[in-house]
Amino acid sequence: MIRVGINGYGTIGRRVADAVLKQQDMELVGVTKTRPDYRASIAADKGIAVYLADQKFAPDFQKSKVQFAGSLDDLLRGVDVIVDATPELGADYKSAYEKAGVKAIFQGGEEHELTGLSFVAQCNYDEARGHSMVRVVSCNTTGLCRVMHALGSSFGISKARVVLARRAADPDEVGKGPIDAVVPDPVTIPSHHGPDVQSVMPELNITTMAIKIPTTHMHLHSVIATLKSRPAPSQVVDALFQEPRVMLVESKSGFRSTASIIDMAREMNRPRNDVYEAVVWRDSVSVQDDEVYFFLAVHQEAIVIPENIDALRAIASDCTKEESMKLTDASLGIASGR
Amino acid sequence: MIRVGINGYGTIGRRVADAVLKQQDMELVGVTKTRPDYRASIAADKGIAVYLADQKFAPDFQKSKVQFAGSLDDLLRGVDVIVDATPELGADYKSAYEKAGVKAIFQGGEEHELTGLSFVAQCNYDEARGHSMVRVVSCNTTGLCRVMHALGSSFGISKARVVLARRAADPDEVGKGPIDAVVPDPVTIPSHHGPDVQSVMPELNITTMAIKIPTTHMHLHSVIATLKSRPAPSQVVDALFQEPRVMLVESKSGFRSTASIIDMAREMNRPRNDVYEAVVWRDSVSVQDDEVYFFLAVHQEAIVIPENIDALRAIASDCTKEESMKLTDASLGIASGR
Repeated sequence: MIRVGINGYGTIGRRVADAVLKQQDMELVGVTKTRPDYRASIAADKGIAVYLADQKFAPDFQKSKVQFAGSLDDLLRGVDVIVDATPELGADYKSAYEKAGVKAIFQGGEEHELTGLSFVAQCNYDEARGHSMVRVVSCNTTGLCRVMHALGSSFGISKARVVLARRAADPDEVGKGPIDAVVPDPVTIPSHHGPDVQSVMPELNITTMAIKIPTTHMHLHSVIATLKSRPAPSQVVDALFQEPRVMLVESKSGFRSTASIIDMAREMNRPRNDVYEAVVWRDSVSVQDDEVYFFLAVHQEAIVIPENIDALRAIASDCTKEESMKLTDASLGIASGR
Repeated sequence: MIRVGINGYGTIGRRVADAVLKQQDMELVGVTKTRPDYRASIAADKGIAVYLADQKFAPDFQKSKVQFAGSLDDLLRGVDVIVDATPELGADYKSAYEKAGVKAIFQGGEEHELTGLSFVAQCNYDEARGHSMVRVVSCNTTGLCRVMHALGSSFGISKARVVLARRAADPDEVGKGPIDAVVPDPVTIPSHHGPDVQSVMPELNITTMAIKIPTTHMHLHSVIATLKSRPAPSQVVDALFQEPRVMLVESKSGFRSTASIIDMAREMNRPRNDVYEAVVWRDSVSVQDDEVYFFLAVHQEAIVIPENIDALRAIASDCTKEESMKLTDASLGIASGR
């Protein structure tokens, strides 16, 4: 039984918490919160032990109806692994985790150098063996690694180019813009996404450009890859179909936009309408000479959740990659080869 | 003096009308309208003769305060050239224009085959000589032709790939979406934009992908081109700087998004905040091996206006390409080499 704590209960933390609760080989010891808000209250109602991210938040909690179980240090004393889901404060917390002697999973907002190992389950699960700390890469990097793994394994990639249209804010982030503009972000090229993919797949030649647009639900990647062989479009579709955690959708089935994909997740009763899969439009897959083109959608809030679960097993159990991914997928309702 | 009529007074028609009024070698005989709305009323107040697009609209006008000068046939009798600015109804009107013996300019919503000549001034002005009908290409195609002309002339292009993030609606089109989604449009690849560029530049190897996003102000292109030579980024910037009707902006001067570019046009007192230039972020221009990357913004309502004016001269005067572009640019305040 892996005893798991989660430091931070925002976009990622609360999803990892629910996913941990679904694993038969894991125990959720507790999560930390900074505010006794509706999220803390709902967590407590679900029976999740809420700890203070810092002792200074105690008065706020004491004034509220939300009970707290102790401090972060108390939480760390009871766990084997802490999942750092702080807003890019992992580097600040690392020494506390080390001091407590717990293993740690960090998120993609941290630098690769923080752990020296950037993790995507299907690409490098086994490399995490023996590490006490790993970094699960960001949502966009995770989505790209999955599809590049499919293309690279089957056809070889001589050059990948991706234009990322990034959702500007999560649905509850009402203070962020833009409302009616496209922001080249960054203006300079390449964006950090290409080098971040290379932190998992060092041999891949990839250049990325990113723009920020007024949507909240998913990132949309336009993928252009020069392959080392010249497959038919159907072979590319097959390779993506065979790849774990990649979902193929078609416009003729009603998938006209990113909104349709989120709506599908709502119809499927996925918790928080989460889409854990990298989603590729099957009818976008096109091949011209040695170049393949397709559209890829990434649910920024959800795609890294299975990776966090697998990373926990990779550093804190003897579970094999295949076993772990199978357990994770079954628990989250991820069907490969859709 | 070229006597000009304009059939349609929407996004393009009203802008072409104002631009014609600024040309010393052109006379605006009148425009057609379907409704006696505020646009018709403002046009009449400016002294523009308003004709009925169809006789069936006469009762609506008679009930309003907007005077009309006659029918489309009346207008056609008084002009040398008609600019068709209808909502993609040019093919329906073509025979009426021919019957009236007037020359015609069509817009990019029509098929290339309608006239057999697709026009971008700096690419193929001279080819329009002797034609009685030409098609000015769409906004995105115009922007792409200008920058590809710059790259092609200076370095040669072996392969161009462009991802177009298209504004979903013009600012006054309140019925169009999406509000919070990305729409691959079309899902299939390539989009029509590549072939449309080839209607002007038949030798160019180009593939385009397009998505529709919730903005109203400009299209944003991510351009990726493999060149036949390997210039330094500064040489690419120079080539774009030298190209007519291409404007370079920099993020350090405050150009953080498409909204900044429109705001610049407002500061410049451009009519209707129009940006006639193809706008490239200078600091986005990047070269990796033999590939160049940059961001290009296209003001969908305005970029084709100078092309319409030049097309008028190309088919109805002896004016040379250089003379015409110089007259057009001076009248509209377009400074090359910004």
